[in-house]
Amino acid sequence: MKKYNKESNLSYSLGIYPTIELINYKSEKIIKVILSKKIDKEIEIKIIKLCQEKNIVCEYDDLSISKISNKENCYVVGVFKKYVDDLQKNESHVVLVNPSNMGNLGTIIRTMLGFNYRNLAIIVPTVDHFNPQVIRSSMGAIFNINIEVFISFDEYKNKYNNHTIYTFMLNGKNNINDVKKENPNSLVFGNESSGLDSSFSAYESIYIKHNDLIDSLNITIAVGIGLYEFNK
Amino acid sequence: MKKYNKESNLSYSLGIYPTIELINYKSEKIIKVILSKKIDKEIEIKIIKLCQEKNIVCEYDDLSISKISNKENCYVVGVFKKYVDDLQKNESHVVLVNPSNMGNLGTIIRTMLGFNYRNLAIIVPTVDHFNPQVIRSSMGAIFNINIEVFISFDEYKNKYNNHTIYTFMLNGKNNINDVKKENPNSLVFGNESSGLDSSFSAYESIYIKHNDLIDSLNITIAVGIGLYEFNK
Repeated sequence: MKKYNKESNLSYSLGIYPTIELINYKSEKIIKVILSKKIDKEIEIKIIKLCQEKNIVCEYDDLSISKISNKENCYVVGVFKKYVDDLQKNESHVVLVNPSNMGNLGTIIRTMLGFNYRNLAIIVPTVDHFNPQVIRSSMGAIFNINIEVFISFDEYKNKYNNHTIYTFMLNGKNNINDVKKENPNSLVFGNESSGLDSSFSAYESIYIKHNDLIDSLNITIAVGIGLYEFNK
Repeated sequence: MKKYNKESNLSYSLGIYPTIELINYKSEKIIKVILSKKIDKEIEIKIIKLCQEKNIVCEYDDLSISKISNKENCYVVGVFKKYVDDLQKNESHVVLVNPSNMGNLGTIIRTMLGFNYRNLAIIVPTVDHFNPQVIRSSMGAIFNINIEVFISFDEYKNKYNNHTIYTFMLNGKNNINDVKKENPNSLVFGNESSGLDSSFSAYESIYIKHNDLIDSLNITIAVGIGLYEFNK
């Protein structure tokens, strides 16, 4: 066992909460679950029971945990094979164009799950969504949604051509309050620094009203408000 | 010049954007602005002009910048005296009870400014809101709002007793959509992990509806949606 590497076909869930989500929703991808001898007794029993129910190898190995995790207080690690999803064609999607911050990506994934958006398209270049930091920020929600990576927005749009496309832009045409919300939809958000380029104005572009004392809302806030409004 | 220390009466804005906000909104607190010789020419001219207009000392000192900032690409630093604000009694407030994450605090401050909430009460224990990491996450918005720290929620409430208090809780009584929104108000949010304790149910408690696939929304998302709805 060694530290996470983007090129490897393995990744890790670090900590109790993400690992329980991994066991609950993606057990078939798990190689094994590693426990520390320092784990809280009650949680140990819970995880061992979950692993037994799903026939998952569960072993004690503090050395591997310290190699895999930088955090001192990480007492459980799930080792799993990376996988590829297809999105659900008739469900609504979130599309992130060039996400560049792992913490933000994890927070967005968690927020999606809470607001019933369980399909995420990511357009490259992107951060690696299987990096343990993304998994941790998502608090394991990543194992409960589908993620598909595309080389261009056109590739995404050609594959899922039955969606009404809403693009979130500073100079969008429609106030999010007023815009007619069709299903299934694709809610498209740009990169943290650069947003969406003007080619995305061709769709139902949306703005979230704020004053001009700030240049833009933080991407996670914009996605949160977007999902909240479309889930109403 | 040395690295930031919580006990010092000085703090720093790191980077162009936060430093410009510092000059624009809190120039009277500035000791000096430090430039790197590597700064982009156009930005250099802009900052020197701003400093001249406000009679601020502006000097080149790459050694101090490298001591103060860990980042390689930091080319300007504002050095300022920490200050204490009073909140505006007749304006609405955000109240954060025990915020524990500096990035979140900065993001919340920036979102507040965008949604016209310019007064923030913080209840201890708290992270240090003058830490350069908070300033950076706020992108300098911190210099454009008032922040007052209290030893307890009661102390806050006794000083600002003309506000309708809305508390954001998982088991709140009112859906944020339906609750009657009075002014001036205080929007109260709990700690990232523990939320607000049950004593806060005594006020107009509010929930933001999400499914039970997640335990709770991220605090920054909850604050973002709260501010968005109350600013409508």
